[in-house]
Amino acid sequence: MQKIDVCISPELLHLYNIENSIVVVVDIFRATSCMTTAFANGVEAIIPVSTIEECVSYQQKGYLAAAERDGKTPEGFDFDNSPFSYMVEKVNGATICVTTTNGTLAITKSKSAVKVMVGAFLNLGALASYLKDQQYDILVLCAGWKGKPNLEDTLFAGALVERLQEEFMVEDDSALMALRQYELAKNDLLSFVASSSHVKRLQRLGIQKDIAYCLQQDLYDVLPVMRGNTLVKM
Amino acid sequence: MQKIDVCISPELLHLYNIENSIVVVVDIFRATSCMTTAFANGVEAIIPVSTIEECVSYQQKGYLAAAERDGKTPEGFDFDNSPFSYMVEKVNGATICVTTTNGTLAITKSKSAVKVMVGAFLNLGALASYLKDQQYDILVLCAGWKGKPNLEDTLFAGALVERLQEEFMVEDDSALMALRQYELAKNDLLSFVASSSHVKRLQRLGIQKDIAYCLQQDLYDVLPVMRGNTLVKM
Repeated sequence: MQKIDVCISPELLHLYNIENSIVVVVDIFRATSCMTTAFANGVEAIIPVSTIEECVSYQQKGYLAAAERDGKTPEGFDFDNSPFSYMVEKVNGATICVTTTNGTLAITKSKSAVKVMVGAFLNLGALASYLKDQQYDILVLCAGWKGKPNLEDTLFAGALVERLQEEFMVEDDSALMALRQYELAKNDLLSFVASSSHVKRLQRLGIQKDIAYCLQQDLYDVLPVMRGNTLVKM
Repeated sequence: MQKIDVCISPELLHLYNIENSIVVVVDIFRATSCMTTAFANGVEAIIPVSTIEECVSYQQKGYLAAAERDGKTPEGFDFDNSPFSYMVEKVNGATICVTTTNGTLAITKSKSAVKVMVGAFLNLGALASYLKDQQYDILVLCAGWKGKPNLEDTLFAGALVERLQEEFMVEDDSALMALRQYELAKNDLLSFVASSSHVKRLQRLGIQKDIAYCLQQDLYDVLPVMRGNTLVKM
């Protein structure tokens, strides 16, 4: 029986053997929620890059580009890192270059996995249905906040563990803790996360609407997956 | 108002600024539970070292010595890493050299803190009473298992956060998650931890009695603290 583990921070990824695993990267507020929304709105491909400079150079080549650092958008980019900014006509068929504080780093760190997918509450159901039939172990990689674990990514990990616990072994303590945290929170995710440090930080940035949106489950059935250096729809 | 944070693994310690903090190191199964028991039984001092070799060289100089790797005791040492092995006459007044897989490493990594203390459920109440009056931030450092978070250390962190939440700010998501995990578990810690990977590993080693013992709260009022390279009673 395959297993499902949870890596609570990209800084711990070296402790997990991902060579035979599908890695599901999650950064609920807001990188992977944005990516999922972008694909649901017709984006063709997303190129995750590590630095602002790389992102600018893609933009200069004519790509649309999105950047975020510390929850804010540097000037001159095409999106403001809110999922709502991807609900526009211009994204249809486009390839977008993206760099964020935590999410894109987690993706680029996972390259040795069998497959790297992007998860969010928005596509949780589609992701769980797809993963149920896979013959590999699964590692949910929480992007966290600058290396520290955060509540919302852990809750997503717990939600995915809950949906897959019949088909996969749950042995890892981080996975068990995430599952129990999610069970505690699931009837009212929004109130539960209201106390988290990251949400307080985001609320100071005035994005309550984004927060509520990113906690909605099963809005889209898109499955973003890495092919080479590019994220595409499966 | 000072704050209390939780570092879920020694591998994340570099992300926390501990220069103005008291660090409480916890390794419930079994290093810090053993240390607390040892002091309660009259041990004078404990010298935590990183390697088996260092530990042997102390033993050759005439110290009592305890070593553990992967939950087992290498041959030739004076204690078998069960807290019960410290409930013997010979420890009275002794200085003991100790090396363990996770616990001693967490202690040696914390040296830049204002103060490094050792915590266990066994001395939780005494520790909380002492810390309540301190003017520094507190960081609970979970020893975990080879870099990965584990349930029992996280639960201890949550227990200490619960006891100190009136006096210290709880802002960090890891601290909030530990607190909630503990609230869920506290009425029956033993059953709650029975599902954890580490406990299953330990049960295979036949130490159910140690597990039940290490989850008891407030048995002792000793406060082990580092002075230089040595752990002593405060």
